[in-house]
Amino acid sequence: MDQKGFRRGSFQSATSDEDMLEIAGASMDFSMADDDPPLDREMGGFSSYNGGGMNGTSTMMDFLEEPLPGVGTYEDFNTIDWVREKSRDRDRHREITNRSKESTWALLHSVSDAFSGWLLMLLIGLLAGSLAGLIDISAHWMTDLKEGVCLAGFWFNHEHCCWKSNTTFTDRDKCPEWKSWSQLILGHGEGAFAYILNYLMYVIWALMFSLLAVLLVKGFAPYACGSGIPEIKTILSGFIIRGYLGKWTLVIKTITLVLAVSSGLSLGKEGPLVHVACCCGNILCHLFTKYRKNEAKRREVLSAAAAAGVSVAFGAPIGGVLFSLEEVSYYFPLKTLWRSFFAALVAAFTLRSINPFGNSRLVLFYVEFHMPWHLLELVPFILLGIFGGLWGAFFIRSNIAWCRRRKTTRLGKYPVLEVIVVTAITAILAFPNEYTRMSTSELISELFNDCGILDSSKLCEYVNDFNSTKGDDLPDRAAGPGVYTAMWQLALALIMKVFITIFTFGMKVPSGLFIPSMAVGAIAGRLLGVAVEQLAFYHHDWAIFSGWCSPGADCITPGLYAMVGAAACLGGVTRMTVSLVVIMFELTGGLEYIVPLMAAAMTSKWVADAIGREGIYDAHIRLNGYPFLEAKEEFSHKTRAMDVMRPRKSDPPLTVITQDTMTVEDVETIVTSTTYSGYPVVVSRASQRLVGFVLRRDLIISIENARKKQDGIVSTSIICFTDYCPPLPPSSPSVLKLRSILDLSPFTVTDETPMEIVVDIFRKLGLRQCLVTHNGKLLGIITKKDVLKHIAQMANQDPDSILFN
Amino acid sequence: MDQKGFRRGSFQSATSDEDMLEIAGASMDFSMADDDPPLDREMGGFSSYNGGGMNGTSTMMDFLEEPLPGVGTYEDFNTIDWVREKSRDRDRHREITNRSKESTWALLHSVSDAFSGWLLMLLIGLLAGSLAGLIDISAHWMTDLKEGVCLAGFWFNHEHCCWKSNTTFTDRDKCPEWKSWSQLILGHGEGAFAYILNYLMYVIWALMFSLLAVLLVKGFAPYACGSGIPEIKTILSGFIIRGYLGKWTLVIKTITLVLAVSSGLSLGKEGPLVHVACCCGNILCHLFTKYRKNEAKRREVLSAAAAAGVSVAFGAPIGGVLFSLEEVSYYFPLKTLWRSFFAALVAAFTLRSINPFGNSRLVLFYVEFHMPWHLLELVPFILLGIFGGLWGAFFIRSNIAWCRRRKTTRLGKYPVLEVIVVTAITAILAFPNEYTRMSTSELISELFNDCGILDSSKLCEYVNDFNSTKGDDLPDRAAGPGVYTAMWQLALALIMKVFITIFTFGMKVPSGLFIPSMAVGAIAGRLLGVAVEQLAFYHHDWAIFSGWCSPGADCITPGLYAMVGAAACLGGVTRMTVSLVVIMFELTGGLEYIVPLMAAAMTSKWVADAIGREGIYDAHIRLNGYPFLEAKEEFSHKTRAMDVMRPRKSDPPLTVITQDTMTVEDVETIVTSTTYSGYPVVVSRASQRLVGFVLRRDLIISIENARKKQDGIVSTSIICFTDYCPPLPPSSPSVLKLRSILDLSPFTVTDETPMEIVVDIFRKLGLRQCLVTHNGKLLGIITKKDVLKHIAQMANQDPDSILFN
Repeated sequence: MDQKGFRRGSFQSATSDEDMLEIAGASMDFSMADDDPPLDREMGGFSSYNGGGMNGTSTMMDFLEEPLPGVGTYEDFNTIDWVREKSRDRDRHREITNRSKESTWALLHSVSDAFSGWLLMLLIGLLAGSLAGLIDISAHWMTDLKEGVCLAGFWFNHEHCCWKSNTTFTDRDKCPEWKSWSQLILGHGEGAFAYILNYLMYVIWALMFSLLAVLLVKGFAPYACGSGIPEIKTILSGFIIRGYLGKWTLVIKTITLVLAVSSGLSLGKEGPLVHVACCCGNILCHLFTKYRKNEAKRREVLSAAAAAGVSVAFGAPIGGVLFSLEEVSYYFPLKTLWRSFFAALVAAFTLRSINPFGNSRLVLFYVEFHMPWHLLELVPFILLGIFGGLWGAFFIRSNIAWCRRRKTTRLGKYPVLEVIVVTAITAILAFPNEYTRMSTSELISELFNDCGILDSSKLCEYVNDFNSTKGDDLPDRAAGPGVYTAMWQLALALIMKVFITIFTFGMKVPSGLFIPSMAVGAIAGRLLGVAVEQLAFYHHDWAIFSGWCSPGADCITPGLYAMVGAAACLGGVTRMTVSLVVIMFELTGGLEYIVPLMAAAMTSKWVADAIGREGIYDAHIRLNGYPFLEAKEEFSHKTRAMDVMRPRKSDPPLTVITQDTMTVEDVETIVTSTTYSGYPVVVSRASQRLVGFVLRRDLIISIENARKKQDGIVSTSIICFTDYCPPLPPSSPSVLKLRSILDLSPFTVTDETPMEIVVDIFRKLGLRQCLVTHNGKLLGIITKKDVLKHIAQMANQDPDSILFN
Repeated sequence: MDQKGFRRGSFQSATSDEDMLEIAGASMDFSMADDDPPLDREMGGFSSYNGGGMNGTSTMMDFLEEPLPGVGTYEDFNTIDWVREKSRDRDRHREITNRSKESTWALLHSVSDAFSGWLLMLLIGLLAGSLAGLIDISAHWMTDLKEGVCLAGFWFNHEHCCWKSNTTFTDRDKCPEWKSWSQLILGHGEGAFAYILNYLMYVIWALMFSLLAVLLVKGFAPYACGSGIPEIKTILSGFIIRGYLGKWTLVIKTITLVLAVSSGLSLGKEGPLVHVACCCGNILCHLFTKYRKNEAKRREVLSAAAAAGVSVAFGAPIGGVLFSLEEVSYYFPLKTLWRSFFAALVAAFTLRSINPFGNSRLVLFYVEFHMPWHLLELVPFILLGIFGGLWGAFFIRSNIAWCRRRKTTRLGKYPVLEVIVVTAITAILAFPNEYTRMSTSELISELFNDCGILDSSKLCEYVNDFNSTKGDDLPDRAAGPGVYTAMWQLALALIMKVFITIFTFGMKVPSGLFIPSMAVGAIAGRLLGVAVEQLAFYHHDWAIFSGWCSPGADCITPGLYAMVGAAACLGGVTRMTVSLVVIMFELTGGLEYIVPLMAAAMTSKWVADAIGREGIYDAHIRLNGYPFLEAKEEFSHKTRAMDVMRPRKSDPPLTVITQDTMTVEDVETIVTSTTYSGYPVVVSRASQRLVGFVLRRDLIISIENARKKQDGIVSTSIICFTDYCPPLPPSSPSVLKLRSILDLSPFTVTDETPMEIVVDIFRKLGLRQCLVTHNGKLLGIITKKDVLKHIAQMANQDPDSILFN
């Protein structure tokens, strides 16, 4: 089957691994997965199950008492049928409930089955929290390793190293035990040579880390690259990507994430943590039959795991659940909401008891502001929102253009070189500037920070006037030289971050977007905040300030501006709404600042949406051609089912199977001559009255099995899908009854049904295909891929961009 | 049509007001609404629209260029068709978008249309916040009026009155301006006679308030009684109750809510505030065509309004949104989530700027705890969870039994007397006990409060040992006599609240359940908390305490126990989960206490669910027979569509209309001889091939209109539903073309479809009816009512308990 053939068919499945290779190569380097059989088949093992019938009622009716292995499983890169999966789970549940009345053992089994979901959530929370702690600690240590080493023990990072020594509070960062590389090698840290040596060591470590990361990803787990959120969205919407959430991906992603973050690249660990948590969820599903064998149930668990991932990334359990609900999940029943919340909480508290930041804080960026904001400040906040929206739209366009270039040109063939080059550029540009040299999350922390009395950082170098100080609140003051230097350095850092991030996101290393986006916004916000602060200090007699900003008062909190800017930029890139505000709210813990955050997030989303509708994750989904049916966008065109269904008017008629007149040979001919994944079964070709729908995979397996094990099944045997088969002359071979594999309740719509309703049905019920009828006669079929292609076509995009079934 | 007939039919609509009266009388005193035409028709005005066709594609095809008024509207007490409503909105949107390219004016219209949703949210937030502030202030004042009056101005409540005078901080409650009734009348407040006079005045005021409340409700707005949440849930799921969210209901509910709360009855204002906010939402929908004319869009707004309601009730915007999502709403797209959040925030900040509590706090019960909790404390927290679950289940059972008794016996005929008697008993029992005399929300505040140094309340009367005090944290101390007295009084208050609330909820006054439930839990929690505290104080050498509770340390915070208990009881009654924890989290503002709250809420829900699956709102929905299809419960029985559909095997065949052979007279005969709300249209009676579905109401209006306005339409005219009507002999009367009112895309399922899938389809797509086919032939019909009756039957409940269509 050629590439074109694959793309043409409406409801076909790739039946050999070579096909997979070819298609996958066009979108992501999936081919590597095939080099390594254990990886490739990992999830395949999970997804095969023993369920036989298509729906609850027909399972027990036939000879297939022991369902065949393989019947009802899915191929890789195929879409699952939510309705069928949920039906199967209900059957399972029903059986356990019925049995529970029989014996105490069965009752215990039923109870343990009911609580297995909660146990699983507990385990996911514990594992995700532990891994996040491990990643935090390692990344901290390795980031500091680029600058020096601790003599008291090389496993201490800079901060821990200096905790040991009893220096004063203000010089926390300077202690005799911590040696920069120049101090270690040259014996001193002064002078140009020492600087160059430190510079060199910084770049060398960065290159080593990133090289190791990209080699590990390339060699062992190609799925470990990127943030993983676009793929997880697609998987949660009901797509099979084997190995994407497997144990190798987990191990490699965890290791390479630490390396990538430590290398100083402009990326964060927050997005990949969601992937890591989902891997944990998927692997732990192994332990429970209920979740191992059911693709729909497994996806409920993965939604919860995604919530746990964000929860540990930011220390925001409620925000994590809302993120999973808003951004990642597809099918998210309320029961899952509650469980997700539990998993997110457990994960957050596990992380806190590991205490990687050494301060007992749950949240990543803990901030405490002392002053309320004034209504007029909404103007700069909205300006930040506009900036965030513009930056988000700009970033998405540029990044997608660059990624497309990588996919289509020779550039994509040298992933290792690409990583090395970008790392080298980043490291060389980053070292001279204090604000890019530090890790991005430290930078954000510092930008969010409200200057207290004891702060010794350059950003807080104001002209001091301690006479007017009351308590911990400092009044607005004139900026000192340190602040002006910091402003210049921050402006340069902003420019660097803006451009380098575009090239970084999408490389073959784990890379998250949250932190770089927030950094861009936080820098812009802090710059604006300081500007407004100085304006208010020097011109507090202006009409706009006079009402609320008396001289000597603390009117403007630049840290709040940084926070609002971070929210705006993150919103512009990801188009998160409620979850964004809630995550930010959990960082501050006070409802006071929700209004500025909301104003910025709203403006940012509106501005960004006006330029381009898609968030970064959706854009990457489209770039990779995943079959993801967006739940947020309304389909607004006036087409009807008849315009989308196959066969088209010029095509040959729909391939159907009759219910009781075809022989085994006839059916086999149909199966081999077509590549469709399923066939409608009709009463007769003449009437075209629909009886049911049978899947290609089930058909092949059942016929093969019957030929082997059932007596008298030969090529001329009649295949019968009805309850009572028509009487045959005694000489004829025995009949092959296949009612058990027939889906007696296929979804149908009429040809006049507006596509908006069809799209809605596909979305809400999670269908894989739907049959089209006219006045009771079968006319055609619409698959999820057809729907996606149609949506792409209506949006003036290339319909062939949808690659998978 | 008799009562039995109404209940029998599967898809019938009540066509006269008398029918409505009779059915409604059985469930709620709906009949009163009919006395007052403006109330009754209020929402009717909103719900009528001009849309003609059933789906977007067939609208423009026929003679009905100006759609008939009334075509496509719903009767009172009927279910809406979500698919159709959403289709109509998309058509509207499409038209505006298309037109926007034509002129600047149309472009402006399109932009204003896009932002009208946000404007509406702003208005709802402002209005709901203002009303909540008004209610708070009035209720405060009137509650204090029962005890005395302020001489400085009768419009001051006790607290404001004493703010004016310059007394010391500790005696805040005592000031010369505030006079108790005995002081005012007798000139002094001492002695038995003064006590009796105060007692008497307290009871008289309480009776006056409640009498006024019940008379207002009975006379002007019968829908204003109760909490309103069960009805709002039903309305949001797609049911029409005209006037339930109208302006009269709003006015009367606001007034009577203040009266009911002030009367000292065991009820809260939180639930009714949701109803008030929804009324605001519904009335403000008037202003925007987009929402006025579309039942589905209106319900999106109502979901947001419900969030705003909870947001102002507790000062918890995030919790409000989650409450709306989890508990109230049915169709809650993500776009609505974001807007709801906006509305909830605006409402919360409006309320804060009104500042009814006089302390600039956003939240109803602001608490700040200083000490962390210990893992071992989870044991008492889980005990509180068990108590909450048991109480919740007990309350639901008793309250439902009592409400059923009220409905079925003569008791229900004397609503005024009932309110008077319950108020009298409550007031007489409440006055002697300090903790029941104060308003319930004050009581909860006091119970949540952690005893500080300056607290002078009895609950904080510990044996003082100021030597070991550090800062604001007081160590565990021996309870003084005040605490022991308080314990006894609280125990008595607990018993009283437990029983009186059962009889109060469901009376003919606005009544919420949140506050009484929380009060019961808070009392139980405080009692347990003090007990544990004293245990730890006297026995800190016990093994369980020795590890973490050294003498002189502050180990136990009884206020936290009260809070956990409140959450547990509220959870047991309402079965809220995430929203409950988030609301409680917003009260404290720290993630620290989420784990205890979650443990208690989880235990409480499990315990309560083990006893009875339904929360109080669902139980009331079932009691009233509303057609509400629960989205949380899975349908788990093995029945199939053929078991549920009408006609049954013994019934006459399905009433159908043929597409081009029936005359006007034939159709009129069918319409008058049956009561079904709609009829399937088939190719011919013999083939039973389905063409579409036509609604009774549309059919009647169209024929009537055609007879009046179209020439040549007589009784023998052929009605034709096809695109091209068959040629007729020239002598025959002209043909009545009715394709425009035909729904060409009716939903169909096969007879073999498991009911679990059918229930899922009804739930997720919001269907009103679904046709059943077998091998392409029309077999029967399933309506929402059939589904609900079937579910009731499977749960061993009376299927005839479902009253409405």
